[in-house]
Amino acid sequence: MIRMKWGMIGGGKGAFIGGAHRIAAKIANRYELLGGVFDVDFKKAKEFAQEEDLDLNRVYPDIDSFINGEISRPADERIQVVSIVTPNFLHFEHAKKLLDNNFHVICEKPVTLTSAEALELEALVQEKQLVFCLTHTYTGYPMVREMKSRISAGAIGEIQRVEAQYLQGWINPIIHGGDAKLAVWRLDPKVSGISSCMGDIGVHAFNMIEYTTGLETQAVLAVLSNLKPDNPLDLDGNVMLRFKENLTGMVMASQIATGEENNLQISIYGTKGAFHWEQENPNELKMFHEGGPYEVIKPGYDYLSSFAQESHVLPPGHPEGIYEAFGNLYKGAAKAINGEKMVAGQFPGISDGVRGMRFIESVVQSNKDGNIWIAL
Amino acid sequence: MIRMKWGMIGGGKGAFIGGAHRIAAKIANRYELLGGVFDVDFKKAKEFAQEEDLDLNRVYPDIDSFINGEISRPADERIQVVSIVTPNFLHFEHAKKLLDNNFHVICEKPVTLTSAEALELEALVQEKQLVFCLTHTYTGYPMVREMKSRISAGAIGEIQRVEAQYLQGWINPIIHGGDAKLAVWRLDPKVSGISSCMGDIGVHAFNMIEYTTGLETQAVLAVLSNLKPDNPLDLDGNVMLRFKENLTGMVMASQIATGEENNLQISIYGTKGAFHWEQENPNELKMFHEGGPYEVIKPGYDYLSSFAQESHVLPPGHPEGIYEAFGNLYKGAAKAINGEKMVAGQFPGISDGVRGMRFIESVVQSNKDGNIWIAL
Amino acid sequence: MIRMKWGMIGGGKGAFIGGAHRIAAKIANRYELLGGVFDVDFKKAKEFAQEEDLDLNRVYPDIDSFINGEISRPADERIQVVSIVTPNFLHFEHAKKLLDNNFHVICEKPVTLTSAEALELEALVQEKQLVFCLTHTYTGYPMVREMKSRISAGAIGEIQRVEAQYLQGWINPIIHGGDAKLAVWRLDPKVSGISSCMGDIGVHAFNMIEYTTGLETQAVLAVLSNLKPDNPLDLDGNVMLRFKENLTGMVMASQIATGEENNLQISIYGTKGAFHWEQENPNELKMFHEGGPYEVIKPGYDYLSSFAQESHVLPPGHPEGIYEAFGNLYKGAAKAINGEKMVAGQFPGISDGVRGMRFIESVVQSNKDGNIWIAL
Amino acid sequence: MIRMKWGMIGGGKGAFIGGAHRIAAKIANRYELLGGVFDVDFKKAKEFAQEEDLDLNRVYPDIDSFINGEISRPADERIQVVSIVTPNFLHFEHAKKLLDNNFHVICEKPVTLTSAEALELEALVQEKQLVFCLTHTYTGYPMVREMKSRISAGAIGEIQRVEAQYLQGWINPIIHGGDAKLAVWRLDPKVSGISSCMGDIGVHAFNMIEYTTGLETQAVLAVLSNLKPDNPLDLDGNVMLRFKENLTGMVMASQIATGEENNLQISIYGTKGAFHWEQENPNELKMFHEGGPYEVIKPGYDYLSSFAQESHVLPPGHPEGIYEAFGNLYKGAAKAINGEKMVAGQFPGISDGVRGMRFIESVVQSNKDGNIWIAL
Repeated sequence: MIRMKWGMIGGGKGAFIGGAHRIAAKIANRYELLGGVFDVDFKKAKEFAQEEDLDLNRVYPDIDSFINGEISRPADERIQVVSIVTPNFLHFEHAKKLLDNNFHVICEKPVTLTSAEALELEALVQEKQLVFCLTHTYTGYPMVREMKSRISAGAIGEIQRVEAQYLQGWINPIIHGGDAKLAVWRLDPKVSGISSCMGDIGVHAFNMIEYTTGLETQAVLAVLSNLKPDNPLDLDGNVMLRFKENLTGMVMASQIATGEENNLQISIYGTKGAFHWEQENPNELKMFHEGGPYEVIKPGYDYLSSFAQESHVLPPGHPEGIYEAFGNLYKGAAKAINGEKMVAGQFPGISDGVRGMRFIESVVQSNKDGNIWIAL
Repeated sequence: MIRMKWGMIGGGKGAFIGGAHRIAAKIANRYELLGGVFDVDFKKAKEFAQEEDLDLNRVYPDIDSFINGEISRPADERIQVVSIVTPNFLHFEHAKKLLDNNFHVICEKPVTLTSAEALELEALVQEKQLVFCLTHTYTGYPMVREMKSRISAGAIGEIQRVEAQYLQGWINPIIHGGDAKLAVWRLDPKVSGISSCMGDIGVHAFNMIEYTTGLETQAVLAVLSNLKPDNPLDLDGNVMLRFKENLTGMVMASQIATGEENNLQISIYGTKGAFHWEQENPNELKMFHEGGPYEVIKPGYDYLSSFAQESHVLPPGHPEGIYEAFGNLYKGAAKAINGEKMVAGQFPGISDGVRGMRFIESVVQSNKDGNIWIAL
Repeated sequence: MIRMKWGMIGGGKGAFIGGAHRIAAKIANRYELLGGVFDVDFKKAKEFAQEEDLDLNRVYPDIDSFINGEISRPADERIQVVSIVTPNFLHFEHAKKLLDNNFHVICEKPVTLTSAEALELEALVQEKQLVFCLTHTYTGYPMVREMKSRISAGAIGEIQRVEAQYLQGWINPIIHGGDAKLAVWRLDPKVSGISSCMGDIGVHAFNMIEYTTGLETQAVLAVLSNLKPDNPLDLDGNVMLRFKENLTGMVMASQIATGEENNLQISIYGTKGAFHWEQENPNELKMFHEGGPYEVIKPGYDYLSSFAQESHVLPPGHPEGIYEAFGNLYKGAAKAINGEKMVAGQFPGISDGVRGMRFIESVVQSNKDGNIWIAL
Repeated sequence: MIRMKWGMIGGGKGAFIGGAHRIAAKIANRYELLGGVFDVDFKKAKEFAQEEDLDLNRVYPDIDSFINGEISRPADERIQVVSIVTPNFLHFEHAKKLLDNNFHVICEKPVTLTSAEALELEALVQEKQLVFCLTHTYTGYPMVREMKSRISAGAIGEIQRVEAQYLQGWINPIIHGGDAKLAVWRLDPKVSGISSCMGDIGVHAFNMIEYTTGLETQAVLAVLSNLKPDNPLDLDGNVMLRFKENLTGMVMASQIATGEENNLQISIYGTKGAFHWEQENPNELKMFHEGGPYEVIKPGYDYLSSFAQESHVLPPGHPEGIYEAFGNLYKGAAKAINGEKMVAGQFPGISDGVRGMRFIESVVQSNKDGNIWIAL
């Protein structure tokens, strides 16, 4: 099997999300880590590389030396695809430089801090015909993919009700904990952009709706809460989505839903049936039918769509989790880079990034303008 | 034990809801049915009365003869309390006449067709110092009452997120079934008022929020869907609630959520903890805690609030259902009529009816006016 | 509607189980309580009767005066059917006298203290052609009845695995609480018979298996635990059942399963599919299929068997509970007394009582004899 | 970080279980695959090695050449630890040769075909002071480890009831599918040993009980079913366990529980509380308390035991699955080989293998001898 020659920007020792990317890549079994810019502290970067048994010549102090170093190598040795796991405000700069120099990119979310930047990357991706994978990890779950496959095949008829929620509670003790909150980068607009709750998790719920249904949101109307006057960013909010005449939907999100962990749920109702899925119990997909019992669909069966089947390796009853979902995105990106034939929807791309940024900006604007509809 | 001398307007043979009232009254064990206006067809009313072994002299052809007949009896024989289970558009007239003549009233929801009518009844109830019980049945569940008791005692701290949903699918086959929909009284504004979904079930979710939290909604912003251009009433909608600065909430409701039965849920998040409850599994109340495991609270235990304890008779693990919840409202009304000392919140009253009608009217207006905030 | 002229032996004021019988009868809507022997303390019995507005002439001090009093009345006034809710050791005497005098009987479980007594009652019931209803209440749940109907119709093919468990924890604090345990009648063999756990709840699990599958147990092999040497009766145990060549089953029961409330579960596996049901969440029935998703079946639908349909009155999503299940047994008994046509299996009868007593005796013997097979 | 120099016997291309071992090792992040005997077909073994970018000099045609080749290398280059993923009947031979030559071993279950062989390996492991890890994968789940930690710390008091079940349905279509069953190696005693159901999955349930409780089973009494006369091995069975006076337990297992996937459950009841865990929803652990609400414990929190904390990397609400549980065993084995300090119970070892084989043999003997107690 041909493995991708793979690099990373960020994600060195002690970086939780970097470790998750490496496990995902290992599960995908299609990547070999060759080098990168693992840390702003070059000494630490080299220590990390030694632990990983990497060639120290391919450990670089910054993005520019990475690019120069790699493009000076013969084409068949050069790193092909680079994962960006730097802080949010650096995503745009790093992605742009990498795309400019013909590297495929796997980028952490949010893709950029503004939709203008995202559009610039989109143009670049199209011009260069490169692969750009945005890690909306939850799209990698087999039961999400089954839902998408069946909706697309008409299994629930025409959609007439849509809602998704993403509830967390982790900021609750911080926001009520005095000055401690100043230390949380998530609440600092310079690092994290114009939104906390919607930018970090609301956008996942939004993406999940568009990913599974294929619907395109036309406008949003939002009510956000910062909870405290001295906190500049939203921590909680509800967003109405308008898709078309007589079809609206909801995104609800919170970082102060005390006791909630990572409660992402989606419900899609059609004329013939409906789906309900919950991220914390990802191997069950409820399917409702008009006038009959509801079904609980689980991974590992022949009766599933090919997309769901390829997204879960083990036999029924062996729970795969979020690392495996993440690995599915990595697998899809490898297939795309390799030009392999595959089911559509293997990973969210730059256009999802653009839509996500437009969602965040529109939501913040709607809230600021008095809860009015803002076109997306 | 003193049993209430009890009458009914409507609810005779074949009337499903009338039967439910009688079972609730029997479970409450505090009512003796003596007479009423059981049917517009007097012959059928008498047949029903015979089946129930009632005194035929107390079977009346209409509300006026009922009132005249009963008030002509000695005070200690007279029917004291009357349940109104007639079609919605008759509630106001019947309630008004009964209150005018000093009968206590147990009234099906919606209390009236307009908030003006509800306000008129409210004034009458206050003037006459009568008991008026509005059958928001779901407030009778012991775990709802435990939630209310604990929130009121500060168990979850200050509230910072609120949502309730009420999803049904039963109108889906009707609305897509051609002309059959014309035959459904629920979709006829003359009988059912200005709203279908919000008037019938959204208002339950709204009431559940105000009942359990004690919060008072200041304004609403709604988006409703009639689904089809020839359908005059809403079948689905989402409503934002504003309680105060930085505290908003959501009510979501649908009658076209295909496959849903009677999915009323409520989630209340506070600074210290949270509650989640689902009507279709009513004997479980989830309580979330900051940083710890969540608890599943069930009826029948000594550690519960006295309100919850008195609302469930059987030992733990013996599921009581909606009839028992309904019976709890009937029990509360009997206690109130008798002037017995009791925990507050035994049954929703006329002021809940007023708020519900204002909710419905404001929601419809918000939707018509382009999804703007309307004060309640 | 013709209502049964109904009496009670036991179950007066403060008797929890007596109240449950009265609510069940009220929900069934086919019974009128006319008299009985409500209490060993005749004064209390009369107080109770006054509260219930009963004719004091039909309140009797003992079973003999009850029988004499009632049979001296004209046939069309006489009490027809009598519920026995006295302590276990009196069931046989009371049932025998009532049957001897041509009263139909509704009897609390266990029917008697020995199988010999149960056989004597069985012969009497057959000779007199009377109705005898044994209150294995859990057979009244609509989803249990759906399971029975479908198994009988071949929905899961030939049965190849059977298990039921009934776990409670209520004796745990008693048995570890010092001398308090002496005061619990359940642990006194004179009152409660030769078994505590198996006699009280194991027999329910056994009955549930035979009721839903129609299988007949040939032999049992049991291991019981009294937990403490000074405790004469079993508090926990596991029982193997042999039905036929290559088909065995399990009954597990405990009264010291700390934290368990009333956890009765049954799982039946056949060649084509399987069922799983849990008493504490009685409105869901899981049906498993070979190679497909599993279904969750709920009450209130047209697609259900007529037996399940008649056993749940409300629309889908309105939870009925154990009182309603109990009411279903009362309804069935009324139909049988009236000679109405009905689906089979409306209530467990005297032969279930005989089998239950044989189960208890055989289980205790198997345990005493060193865990060997004992024919039932 | 020092990575283990790692080899595999079996598990090459297309071998499902070999792939699972490699993913587990990658997630553990402590292993580097250097060579092995990947396939009985040496050509395929080399193809596999090429795909994995392995040194072809360390791809061997058989176990003897593997051992000779590796021990001829300098000690600091030599493979240290070898995973055995060959068919069951070869485990003993391969493990013995590897241990004889001082390789640490990670071995698929069942460790051998007889307890005599297992005892021989046990002696060897002790003599050589080598690490032997038996892959009872389910012991790697964080919530299983929390249960073990808490029970050991006395959280539920003294144990008084124990049960575990492991239900699968996958053999149902095979056993009813005519001659197809002959082709299934699981049903061939030569390959799979004296038991199918108990040997493959019953032993997991048995191990789970002993692992979490620390109890030692003294004797078993079993009833097994082969379902069909021409099938030589058990497909279903129930086993009573005797631990000590007044403490027995149950293991139930089936491969013909139609519709079940991989339903391993365990319930442990003590004097003060209880635990319930289900493998198909592995991130929830129910803890019952005397007289209070039950708790649902989930991974990722500071309040958990250090053992559970180290066994789940991601924040609360991010479901890890069976690969991660498997990875935890691999991590533990690496720590043990390295002589690192660690919490006890990191992986089942050779003594668990001995007990498992004694369990299987005793169960089969008990069934053959007429369901009598057999000492373990």
